[in-house]
Amino acid sequence: MLRPDHASLVVHGRDQPGIVAVVTEVLARHGANIVALDQHSDDPEGGAFFQRTVFHLPGYPALRPALEQDLGAALADGFELEWRFTDLSVPRRVAIFASKSDHCLLDLVWRQRRGELPMTISMVVSNHPDMAEDVRGFGIPFFHVPTQDKAAAEAEHLRLLQGNVDLVVLARYMQILSSTFLTEVGVPVINIHHSFLPAFIGAEPYRKAKERGVKIIGATAHYVTEDLDEGPIIEQDVVRASHRDSAQELARRGADVERQVLSRAVLWHCQDRIIRHDRQTIVF
Amino acid sequence: MLRPDHASLVVHGRDQPGIVAVVTEVLARHGANIVALDQHSDDPEGGAFFQRTVFHLPGYPALRPALEQDLGAALADGFELEWRFTDLSVPRRVAIFASKSDHCLLDLVWRQRRGELPMTISMVVSNHPDMAEDVRGFGIPFFHVPTQDKAAAEAEHLRLLQGNVDLVVLARYMQILSSTFLTEVGVPVINIHHSFLPAFIGAEPYRKAKERGVKIIGATAHYVTEDLDEGPIIEQDVVRASHRDSAQELARRGADVERQVLSRAVLWHCQDRIIRHDRQTIVF
Amino acid sequence: MLRPDHASLVVHGRDQPGIVAVVTEVLARHGANIVALDQHSDDPEGGAFFQRTVFHLPGYPALRPALEQDLGAALADGFELEWRFTDLSVPRRVAIFASKSDHCLLDLVWRQRRGELPMTISMVVSNHPDMAEDVRGFGIPFFHVPTQDKAAAEAEHLRLLQGNVDLVVLARYMQILSSTFLTEVGVPVINIHHSFLPAFIGAEPYRKAKERGVKIIGATAHYVTEDLDEGPIIEQDVVRASHRDSAQELARRGADVERQVLSRAVLWHCQDRIIRHDRQTIVF
Amino acid sequence: MLRPDHASLVVHGRDQPGIVAVVTEVLARHGANIVALDQHSDDPEGGAFFQRTVFHLPGYPALRPALEQDLGAALADGFELEWRFTDLSVPRRVAIFASKSDHCLLDLVWRQRRGELPMTISMVVSNHPDMAEDVRGFGIPFFHVPTQDKAAAEAEHLRLLQGNVDLVVLARYMQILSSTFLTEVGVPVINIHHSFLPAFIGAEPYRKAKERGVKIIGATAHYVTEDLDEGPIIEQDVVRASHRDSAQELARRGADVERQVLSRAVLWHCQDRIIRHDRQTIVF
Repeated sequence: MLRPDHASLVVHGRDQPGIVAVVTEVLARHGANIVALDQHSDDPEGGAFFQRTVFHLPGYPALRPALEQDLGAALADGFELEWRFTDLSVPRRVAIFASKSDHCLLDLVWRQRRGELPMTISMVVSNHPDMAEDVRGFGIPFFHVPTQDKAAAEAEHLRLLQGNVDLVVLARYMQILSSTFLTEVGVPVINIHHSFLPAFIGAEPYRKAKERGVKIIGATAHYVTEDLDEGPIIEQDVVRASHRDSAQELARRGADVERQVLSRAVLWHCQDRIIRHDRQTIVF
Repeated sequence: MLRPDHASLVVHGRDQPGIVAVVTEVLARHGANIVALDQHSDDPEGGAFFQRTVFHLPGYPALRPALEQDLGAALADGFELEWRFTDLSVPRRVAIFASKSDHCLLDLVWRQRRGELPMTISMVVSNHPDMAEDVRGFGIPFFHVPTQDKAAAEAEHLRLLQGNVDLVVLARYMQILSSTFLTEVGVPVINIHHSFLPAFIGAEPYRKAKERGVKIIGATAHYVTEDLDEGPIIEQDVVRASHRDSAQELARRGADVERQVLSRAVLWHCQDRIIRHDRQTIVF
Repeated sequence: MLRPDHASLVVHGRDQPGIVAVVTEVLARHGANIVALDQHSDDPEGGAFFQRTVFHLPGYPALRPALEQDLGAALADGFELEWRFTDLSVPRRVAIFASKSDHCLLDLVWRQRRGELPMTISMVVSNHPDMAEDVRGFGIPFFHVPTQDKAAAEAEHLRLLQGNVDLVVLARYMQILSSTFLTEVGVPVINIHHSFLPAFIGAEPYRKAKERGVKIIGATAHYVTEDLDEGPIIEQDVVRASHRDSAQELARRGADVERQVLSRAVLWHCQDRIIRHDRQTIVF
Repeated sequence: MLRPDHASLVVHGRDQPGIVAVVTEVLARHGANIVALDQHSDDPEGGAFFQRTVFHLPGYPALRPALEQDLGAALADGFELEWRFTDLSVPRRVAIFASKSDHCLLDLVWRQRRGELPMTISMVVSNHPDMAEDVRGFGIPFFHVPTQDKAAAEAEHLRLLQGNVDLVVLARYMQILSSTFLTEVGVPVINIHHSFLPAFIGAEPYRKAKERGVKIIGATAHYVTEDLDEGPIIEQDVVRASHRDSAQELARRGADVERQVLSRAVLWHCQDRIIRHDRQTIVF
């Protein structure tokens, strides 16, 4: 999944004519060949602008400073845009937080080993020691951080994470993170919620789904914000349910959806396909 | 879809050993050949019992009284069960309530004409006159009942419906029915809600879905009860959405799901496949 | 679905660096604001290049000649590209060919009336007279052209179509078109095949699906080429089947998939979203 | 997934009136409480009959001989039926055959460890040594049987399997089994094929799917028969593909479908939900 000599450029901000032309001209001037470009405007009259461009440019790391300087100059006047380059030949550094439930954690570990995800798993952190052996069997550091004292736990988390990771993934971690932690950790946090949000917010969604008698269950991957279960949704998927399924059976079948949805969200984040915009995401 | 010489028998109530044997013995004694049987118990120890049996029995209408009498005798002692026979060679008589939106209404009318639904459409009732010509073009009576005076409208509805229909279908009717009406109409009422309930309860679900940034939209067919959007769910389905879809585009794509979900719910109801149990449905 | 002051530009051919920059610079120079841009290259080293751009440009029809001239000049040297502009404020003119089966035909007619498809239906042509009344009830010309004498029928078809339509849609037409006709008609022809190609090529796919015992049935919309059922696939979708479904029931359920798949393919074609490339399609 | 005091009874053969009554009467007479019953007839006039009954009967193992004797007596005269009891409190003994590809193998191993499958994995057999460590890490015997000498390999396979397993699962084994082996092994063999059969029969389906430009790819689990890729289909599922997906990307995404489809087929077989009938399966 790592792509030598490839990088992506994400640009977003206030829409106005000419942005694509300016951006692609700078890329062309530096010899970059665009291999994929997606652009979206949510309103042709004064809306927001989103663009992701993947380009092939041998020697990109050395050429990047000049590219950034020229793009900065080209977008300096009259544009209200943010932009970021991402080197697609380099894996993201990811920490996975898990609890006792293993399916999302092991699925990510396994996919990473199979080369399906452009990331390295820098560490697994858990409030339970149960998964230590499995995780270490993959050669991944495992840290057991009990959460009885929440403030101490978050301080320990920050010591482990800061400077070491580009992304935190909550793989059924089941603990609420404080807004202080979310600010200080300084990298995005992705969570998997075991329902098709906004249905069944909060705890025990499979039990609630059984009680409500829904015919479809689902899972939602989203960025974590201060508002529980309200962060921007990255991906959702569903599976059929019926009266034959007990709440336990729903949990078993939902687990398959959870791990697929989470792995897609992590993949897309690591490929820098996602742009956050207010409470929503644009996924190119 | 009408099946000559076929009938169904639905039995449900308190589970205990021997029910299937008693029921099928009565059917066999009367010469009925079972062509499909579904049975479900939600708990082997004192749970609820559900059974739907479709059988082939030439001359069923004449044989029905004796069959009912024998089944009643066989289930009289020690069982706590309800049961009902339905003649599958006879169409259900259905009234469709609609507003200005035509997609669910015309889809049902059209499927009925194609012979896909074992029902006759006895009438279409609307609070707007817009669909009169289309509906009457299919040879179906159309009644325009304005709803400014809600009590008068419901009285008129009852005059039209009572004795004439076996089912009322709300095909995007967009009006709330009073609990008095629901009691007096005396037949089930099916509604289509344009979201995957319990997400986006109430009005304007597509606008809410766009604001929340969900990646999946859906529709839900349910029996109408006094509690708005809380009735037993019959069927749900979903379709993918993305940032490219405006709220209007979501409505257009959702309309395809709405009509499919509603038509399935109506089909299953007319085939007597659905057993209501508390807030849920068993669909065989 | 018609978008005033919007047009699309599709460019495809041999990939090389700088195409997007050249194209978007010409658009920007003429005051066009890009509202959506999708670009794909199938190989960064010497592969094929595909780009679709939707832009907002008040007064587009008058400005188009200058835009075309400048783009032609910009792409004249060193590029091996084809390109086309499409005015998205103007409906495509479409002829629908049908046989006795009504579901795909009426679905398109209905969606067109609801404003879901950016097209006018110039005519319906059928080898059976059955659908005449339904079609004319929508104000659409209906021509009955028997096909006993195939050469005469195709000559009549060409007289009706040439100069009058931009697209021919075979809505379960069930007749094979000669390669001569396909050449002379001069516009694309879209067909709906009632299986998920390449499974069950040829006649009676639902019967074959029943015999093979598949658990999923589907439908495929594709461009018609000389090779029957081998044309570039535009869209496919599927629905679950089980042992409970007879071949007739599969046909009924498949009909829902057929009309959805066909309507999507027609929509995308009319929005100029599709680029044909060898035996495949790129759908942006 | 193991269900203490539960067993299933599958009955199939020539349909005629009264079978369900006779079977359920015998069960009731022995004190069994039916918790799920599915019955299907493919033609009310002289078709085939299929019934699966799950019942709760404390002390089943000791009661089974009498139950079998009484059922045998009840079905002795005038019926043309086969029937089998399965003890649902006992795990199936399964051998998994694998090659170098790990996703289907590890998915089954992992689900078994999580308690999702009512089976024990008696052994993993492979023509490559690659997976030995992973498999043995789960405490499962791993046997490396090279297949250069096919006859010798199959003889070795039979020595390992006979008497030891109830089911063989080919988890992307990629070797063709001889008809002699299939006869002698004496237990069912389930295979996963990486296309939605009958599309793309044979080798390299993902490459073929890419070349054909299909918009959906899939996987098929089926019983293995002498005719390659022609055995009765148990389960299929699909996932969307687009022009953006290379053949390698199709393989990656298809792998997710493969392991889900295979795990469902194995689950249903172990739950004795599947009845083979000619080239098809009935899955209750």
